[in-house]
Amino acid sequence: MKQTKTMKALVYDGPGKIELKEVPFPKIEKSTDAVVKILKTTICGTDLGILHGKTPSVKPGTTLGHEGVGVIEEIGTSVRNFKKGDHVIISCITSDGSCEYCKKQMYAHCEDGGWILGHLINGTQAEYVRIPHADNSLYLIPDGSDEEALVMLSDILPTGHEIGVINGGVKPGDTIAIVGAGPIGMSALLTAQFYSPAKIYMIDIDENRLEMAKKFGATHTINSTKEDVTKRIQSETKDGVDVAIEAVGAPATFDICQKIVRPGGHIANIGVHGKPVELQIQDLWIQNITITMGLVNTNTTPMLLKTVSSGKLEPSKLITHHFKLKEVLEAYEVFGNAGKEKAMKVIIEP
Amino acid sequence: MKQTKTMKALVYDGPGKIELKEVPFPKIEKSTDAVVKILKTTICGTDLGILHGKTPSVKPGTTLGHEGVGVIEEIGTSVRNFKKGDHVIISCITSDGSCEYCKKQMYAHCEDGGWILGHLINGTQAEYVRIPHADNSLYLIPDGSDEEALVMLSDILPTGHEIGVINGGVKPGDTIAIVGAGPIGMSALLTAQFYSPAKIYMIDIDENRLEMAKKFGATHTINSTKEDVTKRIQSETKDGVDVAIEAVGAPATFDICQKIVRPGGHIANIGVHGKPVELQIQDLWIQNITITMGLVNTNTTPMLLKTVSSGKLEPSKLITHHFKLKEVLEAYEVFGNAGKEKAMKVIIEP
Repeated sequence: MKQTKTMKALVYDGPGKIELKEVPFPKIEKSTDAVVKILKTTICGTDLGILHGKTPSVKPGTTLGHEGVGVIEEIGTSVRNFKKGDHVIISCITSDGSCEYCKKQMYAHCEDGGWILGHLINGTQAEYVRIPHADNSLYLIPDGSDEEALVMLSDILPTGHEIGVINGGVKPGDTIAIVGAGPIGMSALLTAQFYSPAKIYMIDIDENRLEMAKKFGATHTINSTKEDVTKRIQSETKDGVDVAIEAVGAPATFDICQKIVRPGGHIANIGVHGKPVELQIQDLWIQNITITMGLVNTNTTPMLLKTVSSGKLEPSKLITHHFKLKEVLEAYEVFGNAGKEKAMKVIIEP
Repeated sequence: MKQTKTMKALVYDGPGKIELKEVPFPKIEKSTDAVVKILKTTICGTDLGILHGKTPSVKPGTTLGHEGVGVIEEIGTSVRNFKKGDHVIISCITSDGSCEYCKKQMYAHCEDGGWILGHLINGTQAEYVRIPHADNSLYLIPDGSDEEALVMLSDILPTGHEIGVINGGVKPGDTIAIVGAGPIGMSALLTAQFYSPAKIYMIDIDENRLEMAKKFGATHTINSTKEDVTKRIQSETKDGVDVAIEAVGAPATFDICQKIVRPGGHIANIGVHGKPVELQIQDLWIQNITITMGLVNTNTTPMLLKTVSSGKLEPSKLITHHFKLKEVLEAYEVFGNAGKEKAMKVIIEP
């Protein structure tokens, strides 16, 4: 009788239920797959959403997680860009590189991929993970890198950059506001500075996070529980902000963006929403506003990797806590109470 | 005693009340003004909105109208680009050409202009009109032009083009849908064809307008009272349309756009809305959608004028009825019952 190899993985067992279990070791299923040994992974707000039952497309029995760095354990026969032993960043987006969407760099909508890791297939909060379309879904880590910091390039930094900063069209001299100082808002804050805006307002309800935002480059902070955000911004700017970045995913924070954006401005929504928002189009139609939203394509991951290598971007700033994989439930506890725990991103090491 | 010269003008006297009255002749108030003798003007859906009390910023006593062609009667001492006797298109947008917004070609938000004609100052449904900032707010009509047709360049053609087609990013090969086959939808239809989309769906509830749209270049028409628009479009396209242009200004038509736009697509809202719409952001956030809206800047009017001169664009197609200024109330009646009257744009001649 053949012995099936097993490993530890954090398995979703339905709303409110996650457990560290022994599960079968992943294997190459298609010639384009790789199996990666996880060195470091993390927890995303999206994982908390899954845990709270917000993402019914995740079936019980799925290993969670879509971020991480690791080392290639095995490759399929068609993989050309990687070999066993290579150290890689795992992109949260899987892309076949050849469908219509991939050819437009809209990897989020890849017809044989997209966000599937820790969603439709087993994810990275485990000792090993199978990565489909490895050639397009992994990035080689340059020698001498701070590998742990590069976990931030799996999802949150490209998300803040692409869906917040690039979609918002941040440019030199702009006044911008970021609503929500969590990991995604902070990622927008760090990457917005590539484009030299004049003023960056960070808006949140947590003083600790606002303090952190100041250290990360916010020129102004507003605690929305203590001040009227609209009044403050309208009094300190010409007609409002050029770009309002929504980094929470709630009607109240989307509303703030609608109130503070100036004529000709952009609302770049990054937040994952669970219900509709009321678009004040009766006021906004005449204001020449652009609203964007989206799932990260990770098409700027190679660019971000260069900014990390050059020291322009320091993702390690976002890491506040470390756990072993056996402590993963505690890690979820801390990340789920991020305000109280003063947590930003947590690192989990198998 | 000095005799005050008077003229005829259509005056708004509060919700539901308009009257053709004798009013004082306009005069130069600032050195940058011109007084233009109206040759032809028209009625806009926005004027109907004012009549129905939707635009409280219009004060009783205001002459309506923001479109027209005419001949320069008098110029202020600072006007450099025009002289008495020049034939001109009147832009619906007044712009000083020197404020921050004007320098970004966002003339709609000019700090000393914008949409003021027939709104905050007396408009064009009269024998004469005062045009502030004449150098930036009038366009010289080339010799030999069909002047009547050029009335369509005051507002509706630039609006359809800029707020629908350009904001929507229509490009060769695209599948687009225009929701609403009124004058603005038709303007989007005519100008979208500059950019060679592969398929153009026109959606309306009026068979006569849909027939007209086919003659104007729509490749497909859908009567939304007879067919499920979403089902039809999803079955005939790959994931929906690249660009959905809203040309009505109502929650139901905005909803159609939300349902038929494909991942990575654009919703270009042209419609003037009177109340909020429910943005289905819980479904759309992951679809990488861009939504735009706005008041026309008329920055493409010179470009459109060239396409008319070259015969590429034939605005006269949009004109269905003619009236004298003394018949202006009848003109409002016909335009207000456009479906029954098979009216598109009406021309009014003082």
